[in-house]
Amino acid sequence: MHRLCDFGEQDWLKRVRRWFASADRRLVLGIGDDAAAIDAGRGPVIATTDALIEGVHFRRDWIGARDLGRKTLAVNVSDIAAMGARPLAALLALSVPPSASASDLRDFFLGLRDGARRWDCPLAGGDLTRAPQWSIAITVLGVPSVRRSGRPVIVKRSTARPGQFLYVTGKPGESGAGLVALHRGIASPALVARHNRPEPRVREGELLARICPDLAMLDVSDGIWCDSGRVAEASNCAIEIESASLPVSRALAAFCNSLSIDPLDPVLFGGEDYELLFATAVAPAKIQQAFRRHGLKTAITPIGRVKSGRGRYLLDPSGRRINIADRTFQHFTR
Amino acid sequence: MHRLCDFGEQDWLKRVRRWFASADRRLVLGIGDDAAAIDAGRGPVIATTDALIEGVHFRRDWIGARDLGRKTLAVNVSDIAAMGARPLAALLALSVPPSASASDLRDFFLGLRDGARRWDCPLAGGDLTRAPQWSIAITVLGVPSVRRSGRPVIVKRSTARPGQFLYVTGKPGESGAGLVALHRGIASPALVARHNRPEPRVREGELLARICPDLAMLDVSDGIWCDSGRVAEASNCAIEIESASLPVSRALAAFCNSLSIDPLDPVLFGGEDYELLFATAVAPAKIQQAFRRHGLKTAITPIGRVKSGRGRYLLDPSGRRINIADRTFQHFTR
Repeated sequence: MHRLCDFGEQDWLKRVRRWFASADRRLVLGIGDDAAAIDAGRGPVIATTDALIEGVHFRRDWIGARDLGRKTLAVNVSDIAAMGARPLAALLALSVPPSASASDLRDFFLGLRDGARRWDCPLAGGDLTRAPQWSIAITVLGVPSVRRSGRPVIVKRSTARPGQFLYVTGKPGESGAGLVALHRGIASPALVARHNRPEPRVREGELLARICPDLAMLDVSDGIWCDSGRVAEASNCAIEIESASLPVSRALAAFCNSLSIDPLDPVLFGGEDYELLFATAVAPAKIQQAFRRHGLKTAITPIGRVKSGRGRYLLDPSGRRINIADRTFQHFTR
Repeated sequence: MHRLCDFGEQDWLKRVRRWFASADRRLVLGIGDDAAAIDAGRGPVIATTDALIEGVHFRRDWIGARDLGRKTLAVNVSDIAAMGARPLAALLALSVPPSASASDLRDFFLGLRDGARRWDCPLAGGDLTRAPQWSIAITVLGVPSVRRSGRPVIVKRSTARPGQFLYVTGKPGESGAGLVALHRGIASPALVARHNRPEPRVREGELLARICPDLAMLDVSDGIWCDSGRVAEASNCAIEIESASLPVSRALAAFCNSLSIDPLDPVLFGGEDYELLFATAVAPAKIQQAFRRHGLKTAITPIGRVKSGRGRYLLDPSGRRINIADRTFQHFTR
C-alpha cells in the first residue's frame, strides 16, 4: 500500500475492510496485509497489487524507463516476500501517454523482464492502454512457504507478541537519502540507485518464514517508523525501537553528514526501502547463522522489542522513550 | 484488452509476447488471450487485469461512481467468463484525484461490492493512491471449469476449426448504441444502462466450457467484427459472418431507426458488449437446450461459420462476401 496520508488512505482502508467484511472461505487473508491469501480449494495463492503513478510516485526525469519497469515489479514482489512467499507470476496494467516514445516503452518492458528473471516471476498477461500520464498497476501472485510439516505458512503483520525481537534487513534509509539527492540535484549515484532499483528480499522472507515459527512481518515501504506502527496496531502491541541499534550504512552516514541531516531521519522516515521489518522470538545469532548457511549476505539487525501496550516508541541510548514530536524531520516526514 | 488501435496496441502486444516468450512451466497460458492460466503445481489459476482510465475509457459525467465500480469489475469478470472459468477473487488498484468526493469514493466501492456479490467474486485486497484522474486497475482470479473427466478446461481463442458454428450470446450492439446516446445527449436509459452496467456471462461461459469439447471463445469488448478477427487470427482460420443472422434487439432497432443508423453498425462495431463470441461444432439446438435446462435465458445466436483460410468476412443474405470497406461506419469505427 502506498502512502496517502494527506488523503486519508488509512481511514478509507478501514471503511473498505468494513464494507467488504466477509466470511468467504476462499479469503484466507483479506484486505489489510501486504498481500491477500486466496484459496480455491487446493492450497492458498498469495496475491498483491500496487500502482505507481507518474507525478505521484515517480518523476520521469528522475528514473529511467528501464528502472521504472524493474521497480514497479520490485515493489509488488516485495509484498510477496513480506508474506514469506515466493513469486509465481505477474500481471501488468500499463497506461502511457500517446506521446510515449517507442524506446521508453521498450525499455520499460526490458526492465520488467530484468526483474521477472531476477525474481523468477514471469509476466503472464496484462493490459496496455492510454492515459494522460504513465500509470502502472502490477499484480503479483505468489506461493507461500511450506514448513517441514508440509503446511503452508501465511506470514502476517498482526502476529507480533510481547517479548519478541524487532528486526530489519539490509540498509534502510539509503533509498530515502537517494530521493533527497534527486530532489536537491545532488550527484549520488549509489544512493539514487538504491531508490530506483530496490531489491526485494525474496529469499530472505522465505527463509524467515521457515525458521521463525512466530514470525510477524511486513516490508518497509513508508519508513521503519510508519511501518512499525502498522505492526503494533495490527498486533495490538507496543513496539520500542532503540535508536542506538538502528543500522546506518557508511554511504548514508557520509551523505547525511555532508547535508547536516541526522542519519536516523532517513532510516526511520525515508520510505521505499523495501527491506523486511519483522518480529520473532528467535535470537539474532540463530537467524544470522541460518542466513550464512543459505549464502544470504543481507544484514539482519535487531532494532528493538515488542512490548505489551499500544503504539511505537523510540528509545534514546539510555533506554528512555524519546518524544518523537520533539524531533524535526523536515526532510522526510510527509 | 482495451482498444488502443491508434496507439498500435496490437503491435506492442506482439513485441511483448516475443520479449517475454518463455518455456516457464508455470505459464499454462501466457500473454495474448483474455486471461492467463498459471499453475503453481496444484492446478491452474486463471488471472486477468484490465484498467479503466477517466477520459480514455469513461467520462465521469456519463457514468455514476456506483456503476463505475460495478463496471470495472464486470469487464474483468467477463475475461474470466471468456475462459470458461468461475471468478475466485478480485484485487483493486484505485487511483483518484485528491478532489474526489467522499460520496463518489463510497459509491464506487459500493458498486464494486454489488458486482462482487453478483458474480461471487470477493475483493481480496488492493491499493489506494492519488492520480490526476480516476485510474482503476482490477485483477480478477478465477478457477477453470472442470469436465466430467475431472480435467480442468482452459478455453482459448485460438482453437477455432473449419466447420464450426460461430455464435454470440445476448444482445450485441446495445452497449454501443448506449454510448451513441451518451455522445449525442439522447435520453435512452435502457441502452445507456446496457453500456454502463454490462452483465458478464459467467454462468454461460462455464456451461459452454463443459458442454462444448471443441470450444474457442472470447468476450466481445471491441465489437463482433474486431473480435471475430482476433479469433480468426489466433486460430489460423477464416470466419464468415452472415449479416442476416446477426441479432438485432427491438430496442436497438428502434433506436437506430430514429437516428437513421444501420443497426448492424453497432452490432458489428459497437464494442463493450461483454457478450461471449464462440466457435464450436455443437449444434444450436443442443446448446439452447442445455441453456434452458440450466435456467439460462440468455439468447444464443449462430451468426456464421469457421472456414479454412484467413481473415473474416461479412456475407450478404445471398451468401456473397461483402466488401466491408464499402460500408460506412462513421458512428462506430474508431
